[in-house]
Order: sequence, then C-alpha cells, then structure tokens
Amino acid sequence: MSENKIKRIEEQKLRKFTQDVFLSMGCSEEDATLAADVLLKADLRGIDSHGVARLIGYVRLWDKGRINSRPTIRIVHETPSTATIDGDAGLGLVVAPFAMKIALEKAENVGSGWVSVKNSNHFGIAGYHALMAVNNDMIGMAMTNASPLVAPTFSKERMLGTNPICYTFPAGKYPPIVVDMATSTAANGKLEVAQRKNLSIPSGWVQDKNGADSRDAGELKEGGSLLPLGGDRDHGSHKGFGLSSAVDIFSAVLSGASYGPWAPPFVSFLDPADDQPGEGLGHFLGAWRVDGFRPVDDYKRNIDQWIDRFKKAERTNESQPVIIPGEPEELAERINRTEGIPLVDAVVEDLNSLAERFNIQAIQFS
Amino acid sequence: MSENKIKRIEEQKLRKFTQDVFLSMGCSEEDATLAADVLLKADLRGIDSHGVARLIGYVRLWDKGRINSRPTIRIVHETPSTATIDGDAGLGLVVAPFAMKIALEKAENVGSGWVSVKNSNHFGIAGYHALMAVNNDMIGMAMTNASPLVAPTFSKERMLGTNPICYTFPAGKYPPIVVDMATSTAANGKLEVAQRKNLSIPSGWVQDKNGADSRDAGELKEGGSLLPLGGDRDHGSHKGFGLSSAVDIFSAVLSGASYGPWAPPFVSFLDPADDQPGEGLGHFLGAWRVDGFRPVDDYKRNIDQWIDRFKKAERTNESQPVIIPGEPEELAERINRTEGIPLVDAVVEDLNSLAERFNIQAIQFS
Repeated sequence: MSENKIKRIEEQKLRKFTQDVFLSMGCSEEDATLAADVLLKADLRGIDSHGVARLIGYVRLWDKGRINSRPTIRIVHETPSTATIDGDAGLGLVVAPFAMKIALEKAENVGSGWVSVKNSNHFGIAGYHALMAVNNDMIGMAMTNASPLVAPTFSKERMLGTNPICYTFPAGKYPPIVVDMATSTAANGKLEVAQRKNLSIPSGWVQDKNGADSRDAGELKEGGSLLPLGGDRDHGSHKGFGLSSAVDIFSAVLSGASYGPWAPPFVSFLDPADDQPGEGLGHFLGAWRVDGFRPVDDYKRNIDQWIDRFKKAERTNESQPVIIPGEPEELAERINRTEGIPLVDAVVEDLNSLAERFNIQAIQFS
Repeated sequence: MSENKIKRIEEQKLRKFTQDVFLSMGCSEEDATLAADVLLKADLRGIDSHGVARLIGYVRLWDKGRINSRPTIRIVHETPSTATIDGDAGLGLVVAPFAMKIALEKAENVGSGWVSVKNSNHFGIAGYHALMAVNNDMIGMAMTNASPLVAPTFSKERMLGTNPICYTFPAGKYPPIVVDMATSTAANGKLEVAQRKNLSIPSGWVQDKNGADSRDAGELKEGGSLLPLGGDRDHGSHKGFGLSSAVDIFSAVLSGASYGPWAPPFVSFLDPADDQPGEGLGHFLGAWRVDGFRPVDDYKRNIDQWIDRFKKAERTNESQPVIIPGEPEELAERINRTEGIPLVDAVVEDLNSLAERFNIQAIQFS
C-alpha cells in the first residue's frame, strides 16, 4: 500500500512556496506573508480542504480578474463598536484579517467590535480570524457566505454556501475552545475525500437534483445539492437552514455583498450571475473582551473547570472520550509542526504546475 | 373525535389570568405584566411548550424559594458596549427583558450592545427578547443555558440544556426573520407531544441510558438523554454539541452563572447540585444597529429581496414552499390573536389548580 503513504513537507518550505505564489500574483510582501499564513494554518490544523489545496483556485480567480492582488481595503461606514469594510476584491485571506484587526481595536476601546465585509473573496478557515481574538483575552467570532451548494429545507435548489460559523474562547491552562463548523451536515471537503476513496456517504449529506436523499458522493456534479445540518425536516434541517441563512444575512445583506444564490462561486469556471445584488463575497467578524463582562481570572478558572468536567463526561464507549471543540485541530497542529504537513499527490501536482508557471522551485519533500 | 377538539381562549382573558398568578406570587404590577407578556407571546406564536403550560413550573420554583418575585436586578460590570447583570434569582421572564433593554441602549450609543446575565431562571422563548431589537431597526440575539438533558457526542451523560440560539433580523415589507432554535435535534416539547400521542420518534432525537439510539419518546424518564443537533457523529452531532457548548459558555461561564451539568433544573422536584460553580441560570443577549453597518433603507431593500428569492426557491414537492425562518410563528400569531389561544386539557387543569390555590377566577373559554 505504499501508494497511500502520506508524504509530509516541512512547514517552512511549504510556507515559502505559498508566499512565492502570492508574490507572483503581484501581492505585496506583507500580503503574501499573511495570505500564506492563513492557508498554512489550515494545513497545520488538519483542515486540508482549506489550505494549499486551494492555492491554485485563488490563482485561477486572479487569472479571471476576479481577485485584485493590490487591493485598497477601506472602512466605508463605522460607529465606535461597528464597521463595514470594502475589500476591493482582494484575497479574503488578506481582507478578513484586516477586518478582524479593526474589530479587535474597537473591542479594546468599547468592549466589543463588529465588522461586516463586502467585496471580498474566500477567506480560508474561519478559525484563523476568530483565533486572532484569544491572545488578547477576547472571545472571537467569524462567519462568511460562500459558493451556493446547499438547498434550503423543502427545496432542491442550491441557494446557500456551506456558510461556516466559528467561535473561539480563550482558556486558562488549556488551549482555546474552537467551535468552527460548516452549517451543512457535511462540508464539501468530506465529499471529495469520499469520492477519491470511492466510498458511499451517509444519508442526510446530499440530495439528487430532484431532492431525493442520495448516498453518492458525486451527486453535486449531477445537479444535486448539499443538505443543511440536520439533513431532513424530521432531524432538524430547518435549524441548519436557519443558521446558514443567518450567516448569509450577517455576511452579505448587512455588508452589501452578494447573498444567497448570487454569492460568487469559488471555482473560476463558473461566472457570477449578471444581476448581482451586491459586491463580492461577504464576511462578518467580531470580538468581545472577556473583561467587558467579568475579571479574566474568574472567567479562566471557570472555563478550565468547564473543560475538565466535559472531558470527564461518562463515555458511551470506554475507548472514546468526549472531544472538546478544537482539540483534534490542536493535536494535528502539534504533530504537523514537528513532523511536517501531509500533502496528497493531487495537491502536489497542482502546486508543481504553479511552480512551473511562476518559475518557483518545485515542492521538495526531503 | 370531539375529545381532541382544540379549545381556544381569548388572548386578553389568558393574559389577565397569567398576570394574576404572577401577582399572587408577589410580583410587582409591572413585573407581572411583563412576565405574562413573555409567556403569552410563546402561546400566540404557537410555541405552546414555553407559554402558560410552564406557569405552574414557575410557581413551584417560587414555592421552593428558588425564584425571588421581588428581585433587585443590577448591573455588576460594564463597558460602553457590554455589561453583566445579576438577576437576583428573579424570573428570567423579567430579568432577560431588563438585560435586553440595556443591550439596546448600549447599541443605540455605540453601535452594538451585549449583556451576559447570571443568577436568573428560565426566560421563556428566546424570540421574545431578541425581537425587542427589530422595532428599533436593530438585529437581535438571545441565548440561554438550561436544565441538563443533552449528552455531548460520544457521551451518555446529560451535560447541556437544549440551549437555544435566536437571531432576529428586521425586514422592510415583510415581518422580521426569526431564527429561534434549540441546539438539540428536537426540543423536549416535541418528545412530550409524541408521548401524549403514543407515537414513536425518529432516530437521532434521543439515546437510552447506555448511549444507544432509541425511538421511545419516554426514554428521558429512564435515564436517557437528548442528542445534539445532527444526532450522531456521521450526521454532524459534534456541530450541535459545539453550538450548545458555545451557548453554555456565553450564558454562564462569561456571566458567572452555573454551567454544564450544574445548570439548575427547571423542574422543582430536582434540586440543584450542592457544588454550584456559579449563580443560577445564565443568558446572553445582544443587539447590533443596522445603521452601524449601512443605511437602513439599503439593508431593507436587500433583505426583502433575500426573502423574495428564498420564497421562490425551486420546490422538491410542489405543494410545500420553502419556509422563511419565523413565518410559521408569524402565521400562528395572526390566527391566535383573532381566534384565541388553543389550550390542551392538561394545561387547563394545571391553570385551574393555580386558580383555586390563589383564589383567581378559573379559565373561561366562552
């Protein structure tokens, strides 16, 4: 089974490679460093679908003129605790951290800060942006709308993205709690994995083009759609639809971005519809200062006790403890920092095609 | 089938009755009026489980000395956009609107406002509090922790409440969008309905005391637990668990209330554990001014278009349109205001026992 052996690349090598690609797109040194940091964080945390696997996708959007590598990001509206940012069609990987910094400044000044973003692009993992809060003893929040792939309850039409929500909570002796989740039953990346391995998927993940439940991981290519968290009405899919709607409204209706089925697709071969109701993709980011509510030490004593208690929850199966949100990603990050970041062959091929095009050194595993 | 005929009572009669019960508990005129308004709103909106059906539960907690009918609610910590409230063991029905008013004032002043609440009790429907925002052209948010009934993914222990999240979005020509959802697959009220009708429930709602999936609506009485939204790991129950955890942390760890399995139970025959880590139940409430982000008219034009487009989403079944979050409750409210509020016999019996005890006129349907 040697063909399935995972090849790992040293973090610094992959980081340098990724920066070089963004520099080749015309990004500033600072933006290329930041954008690479966001993608690498996904790979380090084991969220492969949102890391360098998407690098070629960003390049293709830039080729199409849909990503501006030299954006003038600016505040278009604000109050002491809120603001709206125009991302100037920049990389979401750069626009979202810019917005989050403003949210953190506002939180520093008045206790909480909220920034809605329009005219942006795919921002990588929500966790990167929300985690910017925790080192300042703040709670972070990040959400974004995304390419329409998910059908509302009772519909067979792709109207919403996998629209993630992320909350990050600083802790005391423990790593932060990170709730970072697509509001669909399964993220698209999980379908891709099942397709590669030729496995059928659980019911409740996708439906076919007529709205019938399907176990076929390739259903999206046949006009099918992802299902909201819950899967069907009996299992609460109206809740997944409700959450996804909230993400879409906060990210796009509140900012002036494009919403619902108009959200610009990430894949470059699909053009955005002509009748766009807003500008680009939207995000919504925020932070609360813990000491806006109570002394940080009191909070940390309690959050550590919360974690301790949930780790000790009675197990259904003795060998499987309860997982604190964010634990698996924290563990992956520790391993991948030391042992290198695993890359599958298909991604290596994509990266090497970029290396050739931009005259960068190809991926080196040794 | 005349025994199943729904009996309806005029809103004003039920409101007066409910106020009289709260007055008999020693509430002030103002608090009794407000608490009755919160319960009636649930009944009007068709959320029967959270309306006057719970009135006897509040009385029983007061009997036990766990509800203070004359609380001194006060701010214990604040910044320009945040505050923490001590509810002084008052009715959540009174404490939560008090907190939300402070959130609205802060939003008025600095764009957004956030209030965490400790030392409170069950606050009724989250929607009541979050809806206080929309008439001021604000977006509202409300969440609360609750009696532990839900097991984390991989656990068979009741560690969390059904911990609801509510977002309310003002619209232009349409009623507000209201996303108001328990973070468990099914709310406890749905189990009660299935039990009354002697129906089996879908898989993914509850598990038995050993952690095996069960179709028995009575499983909770046998040591079983509710499952987080998603049902099992394959269907995303770690997401429901993550959301529920976030609600618990915002509501109780951030405020200094009791969290996780320590959350004080609503039923009076279960005493809170002796080793309480905080004070009472916790809530978290907030509001954002729409014009903290963009002009209200622009937002309203877009949110109305959002609603129009989602109403037109292609249907799986021609007879069932997509439901905009909050539509069914809006419809119920219009019907129940005109035709009266439906009450089941068991609730009427409970109410009449209160009438007898407090020397109030019994429920009158005609």
